Amino acid sequence: MVRSPYCLWTITIGMGIVEGMKLTLDRQRDMQLYRQIAEQIRELIRSGALPAGCRLPTVRQLAGDHGLTRLTVQSAYTELQTQGLIESFVGRGTFVAEHAQTLPAPAIPTLAALRQSPVEPAAWHSQGVLAELVRMTEQPDLLSFAQAIPAPETYPTREFGRALRTALEQPDALSYGPIQGEVELREQVSRVLLERGLAASPESVLITSGAQQGIDLVLRALAVPGGVILTEEPVYPGILELASAHGQQVIGLPMDDGGLALAAVEAACIAYRPRLLYSVPTFQNPTGLSLAPERRAALLALARTYGLLIAEDDVYGLLAYDEAAPLPLKAQDAADRVVYITSFSKVLAPGLRLGALVASPERLPALAAAKQSSDLICSPLLQRALALYLRRGHFAAHLQQVRALYRERRDALLAALDRYLPECAYIHPAGGLCLWVTLPEGLDESDFCREAIERGVGVARGQAFFSQPQRRGYLRLSFGAHTPSQIEHGARLLGDLLRDHQRRQTLVRARAGLTARPLV
Amino acid sequence: MVRSPYCLWTITIGMGIVEGMKLTLDRQRDMQLYRQIAEQIRELIRSGALPAGCRLPTVRQLAGDHGLTRLTVQSAYTELQTQGLIESFVGRGTFVAEHAQTLPAPAIPTLAALRQSPVEPAAWHSQGVLAELVRMTEQPDLLSFAQAIPAPETYPTREFGRALRTALEQPDALSYGPIQGEVELREQVSRVLLERGLAASPESVLITSGAQQGIDLVLRALAVPGGVILTEEPVYPGILELASAHGQQVIGLPMDDGGLALAAVEAACIAYRPRLLYSVPTFQNPTGLSLAPERRAALLALARTYGLLIAEDDVYGLLAYDEAAPLPLKAQDAADRVVYITSFSKVLAPGLRLGALVASPERLPALAAAKQSSDLICSPLLQRALALYLRRGHFAAHLQQVRALYRERRDALLAALDRYLPECAYIHPAGGLCLWVTLPEGLDESDFCREAIERGVGVARGQAFFSQPQRRGYLRLSFGAHTPSQIEHGARLLGDLLRDHQRRQTLVRARAGLTARPLV
Repeated sequence: MVRSPYCLWTITIGMGIVEGMKLTLDRQRDMQLYRQIAEQIRELIRSGALPAGCRLPTVRQLAGDHGLTRLTVQSAYTELQTQGLIESFVGRGTFVAEHAQTLPAPAIPTLAALRQSPVEPAAWHSQGVLAELVRMTEQPDLLSFAQAIPAPETYPTREFGRALRTALEQPDALSYGPIQGEVELREQVSRVLLERGLAASPESVLITSGAQQGIDLVLRALAVPGGVILTEEPVYPGILELASAHGQQVIGLPMDDGGLALAAVEAACIAYRPRLLYSVPTFQNPTGLSLAPERRAALLALARTYGLLIAEDDVYGLLAYDEAAPLPLKAQDAADRVVYITSFSKVLAPGLRLGALVASPERLPALAAAKQSSDLICSPLLQRALALYLRRGHFAAHLQQVRALYRERRDALLAALDRYLPECAYIHPAGGLCLWVTLPEGLDESDFCREAIERGVGVARGQAFFSQPQRRGYLRLSFGAHTPSQIEHGARLLGDLLRDHQRRQTLVRARAGLTARPLV
Repeated sequence: MVRSPYCLWTITIGMGIVEGMKLTLDRQRDMQLYRQIAEQIRELIRSGALPAGCRLPTVRQLAGDHGLTRLTVQSAYTELQTQGLIESFVGRGTFVAEHAQTLPAPAIPTLAALRQSPVEPAAWHSQGVLAELVRMTEQPDLLSFAQAIPAPETYPTREFGRALRTALEQPDALSYGPIQGEVELREQVSRVLLERGLAASPESVLITSGAQQGIDLVLRALAVPGGVILTEEPVYPGILELASAHGQQVIGLPMDDGGLALAAVEAACIAYRPRLLYSVPTFQNPTGLSLAPERRAALLALARTYGLLIAEDDVYGLLAYDEAAPLPLKAQDAADRVVYITSFSKVLAPGLRLGALVASPERLPALAAAKQSSDLICSPLLQRALALYLRRGHFAAHLQQVRALYRERRDALLAALDRYLPECAYIHPAGGLCLWVTLPEGLDESDFCREAIERGVGVARGQAFFSQPQRRGYLRLSFGAHTPSQIEHGARLLGDLLRDHQRRQTLVRARAGLTARPLV
């Protein structure tokens, strides 16, 4: 949308009444003035009265004209920025954000709320999620779309077995090895990353026990105790539990079709002065969205301006199905703002528990020290076997195979959703293993997920991917581990369940009109 | 030593002068009164004026008789107790500790010092240690006694290779598995622990990436942020770095021939209200000392009284050479005060990166959550292969073999030390892989270690095992990875170096008398 030159609006504060825009500020109210302003501008944006691209008055104007302090107006604008509703551009002014109307309800706690009451550890939602995961393990015949796992039939059992045998011929494969990782594996990782468009020397690579440990090491080594971590939201649940374990406050930021909303990142940088952004900019888990290529340089510039470190989780970057994946942020990281995290779990086999970090020589020693404190080293035996597997050139063919397989499975799921769940909205994932579904308004997510399991289909409930409770229901469906016919079967069962739910809702409403007594 | 009925001593405070015992208290001095009292009693103990077993006046007596508050006297006593110099027994009184004269200089910061200035992270000493470790890796022909590693020739390459092949026949060995660990490995760990005298059900076992991760998980899940951790001192350096990474303050407590001095534990419980004691009660690293069997129940009672949780690291428990190892603390842990940590690194092969925790059903969920946050799971492939290896009954024979081998190597090192380093004191280790050497007074440990490496012998410098700088020089020699003739050769080189050092010292002293100018 093209920005309109200037919105014609005036705010005048007389006896606490804002005229013209029908805003009402009441100095007697319990709510602070800045929050009243923010609340009412938010409503004007949501209702469409202030359209996307419309320019807002400057802080100075609004404050000067109407007898408010600049701090009051700035605080209102900061809150709106943090929620991704307005955008500020140095030298140009403040605008209603392009996607303001379509953004989900703000999941970002206000500055005031954050300062007053540190959010409880993520335990509040993990109970329900955990109970479901347990239920799923206890049901052996379950057709589960809940976990983002690769197709087990693609695991390179034979070639890896051969590599293991060769590795075991050197007896020190069972001994301790270097903290940073076996040099032959770091060399091979470096080659794989070059395929991904990232030139990273073996010296800049640190071997980890998968991406989860990579994230943990970044938090251990580079986050500030009691600090704030920005992320996309919805987000990989691992970071929510981990941040809470490290006493870190997660601030989830909204996304649109182009990935993370940069205005929200900047606003959050101003409001919270965070040290760290955890981001999955390519085929994000759970949404499948990627940060648009043109936003990547802008995000790096923001990181530079605000001293933000980006933990770039790229575990799905090699799984592109439609066109080439965007280059990693780390590939353009001239100002050393990025620690790159990857893993062989999604692209090869999770049971290897091997992944890697890429960091600058300045950051690597602290990360290696964190690795040593955590578990000393990764198994040299597995590292050397993986290095051999990679050196023998099996990986390129493997990647080709799994990309074709997952593309087919994704397409099968998209077709099945069109057929059996047309009431749901969903995002077309151009890569990765996850598909994000928005349930019809008013449908209870937790009932739906529980009953889906009872009918033999496992799904990941959307709530697991948010730091705060959501009113709307979502699902994450992972399509990597099932054949097209299993996918079709599962989607049909979900569609049946959905319609049963809707039928019951209609029934309750109909009965309510006839027989219910008033709630007095 | 038999306790004498009561020491004849009197303290009278007149004009700030303590008579009789020649103590001088000065209310004008910068040093607080309680510290003046503690300092002077300490000197009386060290000089032998107050012999071991001698009873001190009660707090009430000393305070009442001499116009001091009870808090002042209690604080002085607490400081002395924390330093292991005096012992308190409920209903019997306070006594000069049995080993007070022979204890190393107190490494325990005073209560006041601790509260005023939180100790810097252990970085201050790790620089030198790290530099040495790097130097050792860069010297390929080095005969290194520095790392507590097993004998590589004992690694079960063949049997483990076979087990790996079988495990790979199930393709889900390369998939994700349960956070707590593969059930077949937990069953086998349970059987191994029974051999160690510990009845632990598979349900109480959590598989870890070695003992280091076990310790990390206990700190993550069960320590209080910013809290105090008690340990023996000298101690495994891993806990020093780890505690500092977790913002925990380590308080090192003295040991004697019977292991950890319980009076010091109790005093530290009173003074610091710690939540956690990290202890290696059997064949401790680095000293080789074990907590005497009769102290074990008493330590558990202390833990109960003071709400102390014990992280019992038993990685050397299966490596006993003279007689059966004492039973683990966990074996008598009726009140659930112990989380038990073990590993296959020292007894089988470190490259497996597999160990285990044993904890009660109340504590296990938090530990499993910490495991999930850290790195999700251990490799199911390695877990299943180890389970197979254990189930096929190879481990008993392996243990017999390594015990015989390490006994022979320990004896070779003891004999070589007697022959080549008679100037040093050392502790006879009844198990484990480490031997603790006290260098002659005045010898510079860091010069000695650096020059030893230059002459081709790697040793671990004592400083790495202390939380605070020490005046005295120590070495840790690990004897597991070398043949008796290599051990003999290494000890001879160390002996030559020691005598060169002493010759140089004598030379400097001799020259000083003849040619040095006064330092004015």
